[in-house]
Amino acid sequence: MPIYNPPVKDTQFLLHDVLKITDMDVPGYDELEADFTDAILTEAGKLCRDVVQPLNVIGDTEGCTLENGVVRTPAGFKDAFEQVKEGGWTGLDMPEQYGGQNMPAVIGSAVGEYFSAANQAFTMYQGLTHGAASAILAHGSEQQKDTYLPKMVSCEWTGTMNLTEPHCGTDLGLMRTKAEPQADGSYKISGQKIFISAGEHDMADNIIHLVLAKIAGGPEGIKGVSLFIVPKVLVNDDGTLGARNGVACGNIEEKMGIHGNSTCVMNYDDATGYLIGDEHKGMRAMFTMMNEARLGVGMQGLAQSDVAYQNALEYAKDRLQGRDVTGTKNPDGPADPLIVHPDIRRSLMDQKSFAEGARAFILWGATLLDQAHRKGDKDADGLVSLLTPVIKGFLTDVGYDNTVKAQQVYGGHGYIEEWGMSQFTRDARIAQIYEGANGVQALDLVGRKLAQDGGKHVMAFFDLVKAQIGELKGQDAAFDQEFLEPLKAASKDLQAAGMYFMQNGMTNPNNALAGSYDFMHMFGQVCLGVMWTRMAWAAKQALDAGTSDTAFYETKIATGRYFMARQLPATALHLSRIQSGADTVMALDAANF
Amino acid sequence: MPIYNPPVKDTQFLLHDVLKITDMDVPGYDELEADFTDAILTEAGKLCRDVVQPLNVIGDTEGCTLENGVVRTPAGFKDAFEQVKEGGWTGLDMPEQYGGQNMPAVIGSAVGEYFSAANQAFTMYQGLTHGAASAILAHGSEQQKDTYLPKMVSCEWTGTMNLTEPHCGTDLGLMRTKAEPQADGSYKISGQKIFISAGEHDMADNIIHLVLAKIAGGPEGIKGVSLFIVPKVLVNDDGTLGARNGVACGNIEEKMGIHGNSTCVMNYDDATGYLIGDEHKGMRAMFTMMNEARLGVGMQGLAQSDVAYQNALEYAKDRLQGRDVTGTKNPDGPADPLIVHPDIRRSLMDQKSFAEGARAFILWGATLLDQAHRKGDKDADGLVSLLTPVIKGFLTDVGYDNTVKAQQVYGGHGYIEEWGMSQFTRDARIAQIYEGANGVQALDLVGRKLAQDGGKHVMAFFDLVKAQIGELKGQDAAFDQEFLEPLKAASKDLQAAGMYFMQNGMTNPNNALAGSYDFMHMFGQVCLGVMWTRMAWAAKQALDAGTSDTAFYETKIATGRYFMARQLPATALHLSRIQSGADTVMALDAANF
Repeated sequence: MPIYNPPVKDTQFLLHDVLKITDMDVPGYDELEADFTDAILTEAGKLCRDVVQPLNVIGDTEGCTLENGVVRTPAGFKDAFEQVKEGGWTGLDMPEQYGGQNMPAVIGSAVGEYFSAANQAFTMYQGLTHGAASAILAHGSEQQKDTYLPKMVSCEWTGTMNLTEPHCGTDLGLMRTKAEPQADGSYKISGQKIFISAGEHDMADNIIHLVLAKIAGGPEGIKGVSLFIVPKVLVNDDGTLGARNGVACGNIEEKMGIHGNSTCVMNYDDATGYLIGDEHKGMRAMFTMMNEARLGVGMQGLAQSDVAYQNALEYAKDRLQGRDVTGTKNPDGPADPLIVHPDIRRSLMDQKSFAEGARAFILWGATLLDQAHRKGDKDADGLVSLLTPVIKGFLTDVGYDNTVKAQQVYGGHGYIEEWGMSQFTRDARIAQIYEGANGVQALDLVGRKLAQDGGKHVMAFFDLVKAQIGELKGQDAAFDQEFLEPLKAASKDLQAAGMYFMQNGMTNPNNALAGSYDFMHMFGQVCLGVMWTRMAWAAKQALDAGTSDTAFYETKIATGRYFMARQLPATALHLSRIQSGADTVMALDAANF
Repeated sequence: MPIYNPPVKDTQFLLHDVLKITDMDVPGYDELEADFTDAILTEAGKLCRDVVQPLNVIGDTEGCTLENGVVRTPAGFKDAFEQVKEGGWTGLDMPEQYGGQNMPAVIGSAVGEYFSAANQAFTMYQGLTHGAASAILAHGSEQQKDTYLPKMVSCEWTGTMNLTEPHCGTDLGLMRTKAEPQADGSYKISGQKIFISAGEHDMADNIIHLVLAKIAGGPEGIKGVSLFIVPKVLVNDDGTLGARNGVACGNIEEKMGIHGNSTCVMNYDDATGYLIGDEHKGMRAMFTMMNEARLGVGMQGLAQSDVAYQNALEYAKDRLQGRDVTGTKNPDGPADPLIVHPDIRRSLMDQKSFAEGARAFILWGATLLDQAHRKGDKDADGLVSLLTPVIKGFLTDVGYDNTVKAQQVYGGHGYIEEWGMSQFTRDARIAQIYEGANGVQALDLVGRKLAQDGGKHVMAFFDLVKAQIGELKGQDAAFDQEFLEPLKAASKDLQAAGMYFMQNGMTNPNNALAGSYDFMHMFGQVCLGVMWTRMAWAAKQALDAGTSDTAFYETKIATGRYFMARQLPATALHLSRIQSGADTVMALDAANF
């Protein structure tokens, strides 16, 4: 059975040695002393390791079942969900006013990774609820907040997001679900939504569906879309549950993975719905959920990659096969462990250097979110908005590839379900698709985010890289050569790609769009390069200061060296593809493919 | 439901315009006129499209079942297998003496691709039989050939390969299965083998297991391994079936994919076995099967990639979502088809340029095999031996990645099983693992094949590339720039990598082995570059000669341009990784990971 060890030490290193959160001027960060965060992370880690993770394989094997309109979750999910609720984990970063603990996003993200790594399908029930609650928090009326948030923060009620319909996913302007205004101010919602994660299940008394629909007579396309609260069970004025609403799960999809989460076809038949925010402004509210969800999905890429890596590492240490060509390492055994072989190392180092870099990237992103939300820092808001598609697209792509690499370490045992490695790849696969397929993330990045506010945020990113190089340069020749030079080269590649888009995208936007996917990936590589430079510097400082934990910090630097030498140079390939332009991409008539 | 259209026209282009097989001096090739090969390919294609492919999803859904020792294949498999046998397809490239049609390998490969693309799990029953028959043909006694081959060529009896045991896959020296010599010259075989594809099923009267085992008292490790024929049902002297042998399927593995093939745990309990070839020389005989199997597995990478691409292409043309940013293409519809979007194009062109390049590579490899086997050409034999790990490792890695890309085109619909795209990725995944995991292929390439015969074969490969460039250069400036220059640069990268291994691998072999995986991939890229140069040149010649089918040939050149501009430059990244050496890869103590 697969194992999972929450990387508390690594998270602590990031929070305190690298990001130095208590030194940051963000409301709430002053309380986040190392002992305090260690207690939170350790406690969450235990729950994830001992309660949530053991249900991962069970969830995959049993899946969810639909019978007479009732969806049953896999054995043990309900009990575990109760424990998560009782521990107060569902409202960790929600306002105290609604029963939450008001922790910053950086703590929510750190803990969220552990839950996702332990059991992605299970954690999604909570994740969707969090997203729906955030949208109500940001756009709902006071009465809506008071009615729904306390129950959603505690996960007594869960939430969902209803966007996709059979004929439209990305292009929501084609939506057909209708909302008819009623005399009492509510609406009647009718239509079919598909791919609704956690759409129906047996772990909560009520499910609060956030549903996009069109009010008749509104503007055409995406400009005529509004967002509604549609509870599974109507809520009486006194907060008690009333009649069952006109919404039902019509089917559960058979999927490649995340079998423990019920992916539902939801049928709305004159269901009572309540408008959130303004009529026809539903996309704005939906994007509050979407942006949060996209960061969460990027984290899933990291999480599945890390748990798969942890298992591959164990196997590589245990499994005896072949001999080290440079000299036997296990003379008393019949063979050496897999980990002596250079190509196994290459694979493990790819996985390790990604997971640690991605974790830093996610937590850095969360500090930007906190700066935006807790201080109203518009620059931080713009930067995290720019980075969101990179976090979602890049981390889920490479995260998936790493689950495949981890599976490969097992040889034939990786392909049979018994060992659990196949599940990591099958579960990780969805993260590249949902909340906007990664091609759409690339389009969002290049088509929208790059030019946002006059390109201000991407310039700020480059300034940040430059400042970091400037600050650290000239203090240590080896560090300059191993970290700063590669980072500078990669950042220059990224800038050259941006320049190419500016110079060639005006005359033909396809010159930018045909390179968008490569751009998203090279952006991600540069971000990880920035993170590794910071981590290695922090490790060097700890060593210079005479830390006793030399193995930890030296390993950190060595892992960074690997990333800079073996992964970061990929930016040059991406740049060359981008600079080859759109001609070869667009050459064929559709009929000639 | 997924579709499959056998690419007969493309195969014909390769056989006759590019490889020009009837001009080659290989016994049997003179009969392969275009009309003749077209008839064969068309007939095979029909069977694959109409009979074999429709069972692909059924095989995935139903899987195989084991009850009271009997394995039942999915509904329809047995009937389809009968049709394949009746058509004579199982013995296509087997000797006439044993009931085959004695066709060259190039035809066997062309047809084999269609079968694998139509239904990989189904086709493996035949593929394993072919491999086992080849080993008997090469190493068996006349009596063994006469006893087994006629039935195996017709697939009345099927075959298997038994290598892996629970504790050893790659490192077969650790094997525990024992063979005890008997007075009558036979052996008693005892032990357990795992991951035995087609190990037990209901489609044949007998199953001929080829089993590696150790004869007591023989040399230690891999040098003490012998190969045995162990029939499921013993064969009487008159050729009729006798008693059931001491071999049974103990379990069927639950796998990520290829559910239609029974992957068995096989228990041998004093089973009667007959030695093939010499005692303790089993690996030599096994490698006859393995090498054939590795080429076949490389072909599976191409096959799954191509069928997934075909479906992604259909979906991209059908599915309406969003608008072309350069101007609406479908003004009467609610949106434009996906294929207008540059990033969808990028994905489709990646898939298309790979499939066509890989098909050329496979067929070229098959002509080398034919030269080796039919003419005794030692140079061709050495070259195909060098290329075998590249064909296996590179084509299955990129093939798999392309099934993931094809699935991605479907968005959320790619993740649910209903559309069949998940199956292509799940089935393609095994090809990276079995017959030697791809890391082992890279080790074989760099650790063994590069230096084989004093490095003669890799030098021959570089000479071949140089000669091709020299022959075509200076005739067309655009062709020089678009094809020959990139090919030259990529080939130079590959040579530089080889040079790095020579200069640094002597002092520390890890410097070579840590770059082996990148080397395998860059070698594959260069091979596809060679293929695309040849294909584009052939297309150009057809256009210059005034062909009426301009769309086909122009598309070929445009697809080649895409490959040269967008894929081939990956060699530079691989080279930079290789040249970074082993230090960062090997830096960590195993305990510090």
